[in-house]
Amino acid sequence: MNNTRARFPEMLSSNEYVVGVDMGGTKILASVVNAAGRIISQSKTATKADKGPHEVINRIAQCIRNAIDRTGMESPQIQAIGIGAPGPLDPDTGVVIFAPNLGWSNVPLKAKLEASMGIPTFVENDVNLCTLGESASGVGLGVKSLVGIFVGTGIGGGIILDGKLFRGASDTAGEVGHIIVKSDGPRCGCGNLGCLEAVASRTAITRQLRKAILKNGKRSILLKLNGGNLGLIRSSTLAKAVRRGDKLTAKVMRRAQNYLGIGVASIINFLNPEMIVLGGGLIEAMGDGFLDGIRSTTAKHVLPSTMDGVQIVGAELGDNAGVIGGAVLARQMLGEDITPPQRDV
Amino acid sequence: MNNTRARFPEMLSSNEYVVGVDMGGTKILASVVNAAGRIISQSKTATKADKGPHEVINRIAQCIRNAIDRTGMESPQIQAIGIGAPGPLDPDTGVVIFAPNLGWSNVPLKAKLEASMGIPTFVENDVNLCTLGESASGVGLGVKSLVGIFVGTGIGGGIILDGKLFRGASDTAGEVGHIIVKSDGPRCGCGNLGCLEAVASRTAITRQLRKAILKNGKRSILLKLNGGNLGLIRSSTLAKAVRRGDKLTAKVMRRAQNYLGIGVASIINFLNPEMIVLGGGLIEAMGDGFLDGIRSTTAKHVLPSTMDGVQIVGAELGDNAGVIGGAVLARQMLGEDITPPQRDV
Repeated sequence: MNNTRARFPEMLSSNEYVVGVDMGGTKILASVVNAAGRIISQSKTATKADKGPHEVINRIAQCIRNAIDRTGMESPQIQAIGIGAPGPLDPDTGVVIFAPNLGWSNVPLKAKLEASMGIPTFVENDVNLCTLGESASGVGLGVKSLVGIFVGTGIGGGIILDGKLFRGASDTAGEVGHIIVKSDGPRCGCGNLGCLEAVASRTAITRQLRKAILKNGKRSILLKLNGGNLGLIRSSTLAKAVRRGDKLTAKVMRRAQNYLGIGVASIINFLNPEMIVLGGGLIEAMGDGFLDGIRSTTAKHVLPSTMDGVQIVGAELGDNAGVIGGAVLARQMLGEDITPPQRDV
Repeated sequence: MNNTRARFPEMLSSNEYVVGVDMGGTKILASVVNAAGRIISQSKTATKADKGPHEVINRIAQCIRNAIDRTGMESPQIQAIGIGAPGPLDPDTGVVIFAPNLGWSNVPLKAKLEASMGIPTFVENDVNLCTLGESASGVGLGVKSLVGIFVGTGIGGGIILDGKLFRGASDTAGEVGHIIVKSDGPRCGCGNLGCLEAVASRTAITRQLRKAILKNGKRSILLKLNGGNLGLIRSSTLAKAVRRGDKLTAKVMRRAQNYLGIGVASIINFLNPEMIVLGGGLIEAMGDGFLDGIRSTTAKHVLPSTMDGVQIVGAELGDNAGVIGGAVLARQMLGEDITPPQRDV
């Protein structure tokens, strides 16, 4: 939480707060954030998506109430709630259009939460909010144009231009996982061939390892490290296998790293943003060496001079990126003009 | 010229003008543009790059003077000059850093032209100016976010956000030709593998045709249509071969069309702009059918719903895009606040 450097104007009354919420397929995280952009209390609960949208929304509301209770204040003035949700959604109406990992379709999240909490609520794509969080209070503080790339089960991202989320014509901007890097590559979950997500996500990596070990009989310590099966392989297990010198895992990870570098190079050649922020479970587990490898692949694939002034960095806020982004969104949507201050390092 | 619809505020005095200049490897085009954004006079001359930067800059100045003379006015008030130049350049200092097709390196174009003409001069990448022209007075009138893609010898482009040119961290934004679409594809002029330019520019198409006909002995009417050699094949000759039913040319063009569609899909998935404008010699020569093919390939490769609200259209201004873009830049740099009007169709 010491990473939540202030971006909010100090003129705001110190008893005014916003709540940021990050709703994932397995857990809900809610944080009360003060006028200085700092998390002052937090609550976490299981999503229990199998119980249906009504119950999940009740759980979100309870999680928010718990976070508010934990501030220890009598009645803190919560100005707004900013919540990140997966799947295509409409930020204007706050309806989650389709979220397969929750089993949701057309759920009016904003309306339901506002009815339950009586507080203005703003809904945004979860990865967009992580990018906004890193931009406003994380590694991107003071940077005007930034692209966030979060690598886990899938690959998601967001675009910040002039300090604000760039949503695009149909609110889908920032789908970095579906930049096509190898037009004759493997089929992606979206149906197309050769998307970045189809060659460099944890899902793609797991598929390659499973095929190499179970089908082609390649030797690897991964099977042992992962408890004798290759159903779900966590990012930490992949990192452990590489650390222990497993050649197969190292090779597959290098391939993913290479594609990530190519994807980043395409983004830099096309958009030339000031900063690329790489985060998500896989990037965090693999650590600095992996990031260095992405950087050097990118450098090999960009046009001369396009890298000048572009930083490629790791995300800083970890699991708090989403709730901090939610808080920033809540303040921005309240119409407060937040100008990015200069970085104070 | 009837396409140069007004974007300039009408409050401007009607005797105030700007000059837009498009400097290419073979010709220089200069236009005087009035307060309503219309070209009122034009002059064209050969670049004669072989005579060196000093002589080329003299020729630009003379071309501008000729265009001014042709207005027929005694002394029109030329407020500023906006000039598009090839190659990496610094828009702040107006220095052309490197332009191989002119043989230029570190030429202070802005300073030299200002000394010669006594008029504030602004220098910008030529393809950026074509995009700005289409955005301000062409097919993109009233559109806030737009990506221009110009296909010819190479593939260049530009990005318009909120009605203005987006330059990026190192002034290189919009290099659409170097989005990597096939990471193990052919080597690009930039040194990397599988850039869009390496598989879909006229240079790439010519290379494929040359190899198929001269090396692999494929049958084609192209050799005859092109005067018995395959040195330089013009876009119009490629279009003619396709129209006459040449199977080989049609096949190679379909491949380029496919890669262009994939590149456009990556841009839509990533940036989700309101409009993609396709222009340049190859696109213009091939006509609407070619554009339709790009559109349908793109539709196959975008994420569901990302195409909603995104238009893929052909450029409208043809050879005038650069000079009109130069005029728009000149006005914008003068600090006049130009807000995009609604499209009046």
